[in-house]
Formats: sequence, C-alpha cells, structure tokens
Amino acid sequence: MASNATNGSAPAPSHRFDAQFTDNVINGMGPKTTERNRVVLGALIRHLHDFSREVELTIDEWMTGVHFVNAVGKIYGDSNKTRNEAHRVSDILGLESLVDEIAHKVISDTGIDPTSSSILGPFWSPDAPFRELGGNIMQDGVPPNGRVTKMWGVIKDITTGKPIPHAVFDIWQASANGKYDFQDPDNQSPNNLRGKFRSDAEGKYYFYCLHPTAYSLPTDGPAWALLQAMDRHPMRPAHIHIMVTAPEYQGCTTQLYPSDDPWLTTDTVFAVKPDLVVDFKPLEGDKTATLELEYNVFLAPKGYKGLL
Amino acid sequence: MASNATNGSAPAPSHRFDAQFTDNVINGMGPKTTERNRVVLGALIRHLHDFSREVELTIDEWMTGVHFVNAVGKIYGDSNKTRNEAHRVSDILGLESLVDEIAHKVISDTGIDPTSSSILGPFWSPDAPFRELGGNIMQDGVPPNGRVTKMWGVIKDITTGKPIPHAVFDIWQASANGKYDFQDPDNQSPNNLRGKFRSDAEGKYYFYCLHPTAYSLPTDGPAWALLQAMDRHPMRPAHIHIMVTAPEYQGCTTQLYPSDDPWLTTDTVFAVKPDLVVDFKPLEGDKTATLELEYNVFLAPKGYKGLL
Repeated sequence: MASNATNGSAPAPSHRFDAQFTDNVINGMGPKTTERNRVVLGALIRHLHDFSREVELTIDEWMTGVHFVNAVGKIYGDSNKTRNEAHRVSDILGLESLVDEIAHKVISDTGIDPTSSSILGPFWSPDAPFRELGGNIMQDGVPPNGRVTKMWGVIKDITTGKPIPHAVFDIWQASANGKYDFQDPDNQSPNNLRGKFRSDAEGKYYFYCLHPTAYSLPTDGPAWALLQAMDRHPMRPAHIHIMVTAPEYQGCTTQLYPSDDPWLTTDTVFAVKPDLVVDFKPLEGDKTATLELEYNVFLAPKGYKGLL
Repeated sequence: MASNATNGSAPAPSHRFDAQFTDNVINGMGPKTTERNRVVLGALIRHLHDFSREVELTIDEWMTGVHFVNAVGKIYGDSNKTRNEAHRVSDILGLESLVDEIAHKVISDTGIDPTSSSILGPFWSPDAPFRELGGNIMQDGVPPNGRVTKMWGVIKDITTGKPIPHAVFDIWQASANGKYDFQDPDNQSPNNLRGKFRSDAEGKYYFYCLHPTAYSLPTDGPAWALLQAMDRHPMRPAHIHIMVTAPEYQGCTTQLYPSDDPWLTTDTVFAVKPDLVVDFKPLEGDKTATLELEYNVFLAPKGYKGLL
C-alpha cells in the first residue's frame, strides 16, 4: 500500500478495506490446483488487488479496463489472427522484453557473453523457407527505396570461441514500407523477406537482405489508445529479426538495430540492448548490395549455467 | 520481490535483472499524460513487472496470458455483446468486489451503517420498466419450480432513521432456470424479472418476485478455463439484485442472498457480505405468494463523510 505518512499528509486509509479479502480469494483455490498455478495466479491476484487499493481504482476506471480487454480480443477475433493485439499491448507495457530478460539473462564467466536476446514480436513465421548461403530474401525484388545489404558473420561458442558449423540462421524483416508480408498481401508474396540459412563448415553465414526501416505500430485500436493515454509515440526503431539455433546450443532470438536510428532510445516496445546496435557500412565492388553488415553471434552450450 | 532468505535457501536472483527497466518504461510516459493516468498506469506497470519478476514468469506462461486475453475479447466480439467475458474474469479474480468496496466503504458514526453495496454484475439493464407498487416482475408468469415471494420493506436515512419516500427500487433476477432474460430469449421476454418501483409516502416498497435460484457461470470459455486452473466451482449463491436510488442520497447497488444457500461461503465472485444474507419466511393468506422477504434498505445522504 502507498503511504503518504512521510510527506505530512494522512496515511492512505487502507484500514477501510477488509484485510482478509485478498487472502480469501487466493485461498479459494482448490487442492487440485497445480503448485505452479498456485504460485503464479496467487501472485497475480495479490498484485492486482494491491494495485487497485494503492490507486483506489474507481468503478469507471475498472470498467474502462474491462472494455479495454474486450476490445483487445475482439480485434484479434475480427482480423483472422493476423493482428495479435494482446501481444502488442504487452509489448508496449514492456512485458515481453521483461519476460525475455527473465528467461535468457546469463552472466557469463568466459569473458564472452552470449548475444543478448530480444523479443520475438508477433511476426515470426514457422514457414520461412531454407535458402542457399549467399542467397537473397528479397524474393519479390528490391522494393522502392530499398537499400540492399550483404549481411555476414560467424556463429561462435562462448565457451571455446570456436565457430559453430551448420547452425540455422533465421531472418525476417519488414519491407521498405515498414510492413511484413503478413500485413502487406498486395505488395508481398508469402515469405518475402524471410529465410533460413545454414552456416558453413567454418560457422559462417552470408546472404542479401534490406537495410531495415523504422515503422509505426498501428495507429488505431486499443494498443494505440493506450499509447496515447501515456503520451508516447508508436515508433519502433528500424530492426532486423534473427533467430539462431544449433542442436547443442541455447538458441538466440534477437533483433539488430542500425546505430543511427532516431528511435533507438525510445523504442515503443523497449527491446533495444547495447550489443544489438550495429553499424551498416558502405560496400563497394558487389553487384547486388551497396551496404554490408558484419555481425557475429555468440551462443552458450545447452546446460551452461543451468540453461535448458 | 520475493525473498527466500528467511527460509534458508538463497535469495531470489533479482540482481540478474536490469534494475532500471521498470522505471524506464514508466518514465516513457510523455508530458501530456494526465496526472491520474500517470498514477494508475505507472502503478499498473510496476505491479505487472514486479509480479513477473517475483514468479519469474516464463515465456510460455506469458504467451498463455496473451492468448487468454485475446480469447476473452474474442468471445465478446463473437457473441454480440451479451457475454461480457472480461467482466466475468475480473469478477472471479475478486476485482469487481474489491473495486466496489473501494468506492463504497463507509464507516458510519450514526449507529446505523448504510446497506452494504455489492457488485453490479453484467446483467443490469437500463431499460427495466417502472411497475406499480404491489406489482409483479414475473411478466411471463411463474416459471416451473418458481417460488413466488412477496418482498417488502422500508427505505431509510441512516442519519435520521426516517423513511425516504419516492425512492426508486430497481430489482433484477434470474429465472428458476438460473438464466436472465438476456441469456434466455426462448423462454423469457425482454424485461421479464426486472422492474423499478417507487417507494410510497412512508418509504415503503412491496412487490412480487421469485425466491432466487443459485446458478453456474458458463462452463465454457476463458473464465471457466481460469476457474478450472484454480480448482474452483463456477457457482454463484442464489441472489436478488437491487439498486436503490433517491435524489438526495448515495445510491446502493447490492445483492441479497438466502441464508440457507449452500454456496454462500464460496461464492465464485466473492460478493457476499453479512448484512446481505436474508431469511425467506413462509407466507399464509396471500393469493399470489407462498414466501415473504422483508428487507429494509439504509441510505446515506449525499456528502455524508465525503460521499459524492
């Protein structure tokens, strides 16, 4: 409970409220509740109630929340699952980034930290095709204003520093109009700007993609209403999504951000971390690309410091 | 953050997490955020993050929550607004009862407390018709197994003990099958088992209604899934909803419960309070009813102890 005692005004009148109420709700869970459900739902109920008492949530505010939750799921139902509004709302509240940190934070003692993870976001697809090393994910050609980039690097083991051959490097990105294939069926075929590549015997990967483009979250619907209530912009900095996996390693799902992006410090989903900020450099002598991006990925072996 | 230090095991490894992350999200609110939004959304974000760190919420659990929120609102969208699943979920977590307490808890100093409020629930209608005193809300007749009750009492001022004439007594209840008119269009016409009555010059009201019937919340959909995860039953004790208003008084929205109901102590929405438990008594010599219920309602004047 908030207390105002230190600033001279009266303490919050928490004594007005039934001190047993929250325990009664939590203890309503029956004996067949799993231990984990008891822990998670018990903590959820306690924080929900503490929040409500702390701010003395009004009936109108509670009803606004009820309407908000209904509106979030209604968009999902209306739009045939291509717009996951609950995912987006949890992102703008920082929840996906926090859960990602809880799952993946590892303090290495080898002198090399694993590449930071970042949020998956709602646009990963399990259907992205494997493409040949050196291939091009722009299957619909270079879009207007697209800047073609040769991306390359080595996937390495943090404990040995040695390369990891035959790792899978899965990349997905929005086009130069800021839209993913799912969102842009008039301009993009399925799996445009998606692809999986397998690192070679020296752990190296390389392919052609786009310099990424900053984009706005949708400026309609409940997530946008929430952003407006917080006087926040809807922009994500430009980014490339990657998911790197190898059989004996903890996989890494993350995002890479150009260092000159204007939204880097105010990402609306709080997903930027220092080791994920990269420099795109001019490339000469390549028939396909005008830019290059070198990025080495560091993976921890499974079981390292308790990783699954 | 939870600490296990007192039971001999290691403290929770909260230091693994970025100590600035939650402040960064909260401080992302811009200067045009209203002061109340800053307080409410700031506390919501802090409790949401503290909850997640405290239980070390996994990515799968977070995703379960995302799907849950989408499913809640999808039902609302699918069912043309007659099934308010977000309202129901907040009820089974005790939130509506808590918000109701925050809004209405008054400690009287007159020796008479105002009648306790209880949750509105999703079935109140603004369209209930006024009926004559002594009238009958069973506009579709007595349903099978229905037990007709004469309900009566006096509406009184807590500060003077005097009756309040011309107060509006709005009643709504489920039929003997446990369903409200909204939910039961095959058997009930609109406004069946609803009605508004105006107290007479002596503050007295009286009309005919049904002895209420316990009923189950729906046993499908997200709210039911949540109840099952908590190993809880879906039953509400039998109850009559009332909303009593008068121009110079703080209105009272509440529910009355028969004292012999088996679900009284485990109400799935936590809405029972001691002064709302009532005795139905046999009634002789009345052509319409076999039971009677006397219930006096006590209202506080507007402005009493800061009430609006």
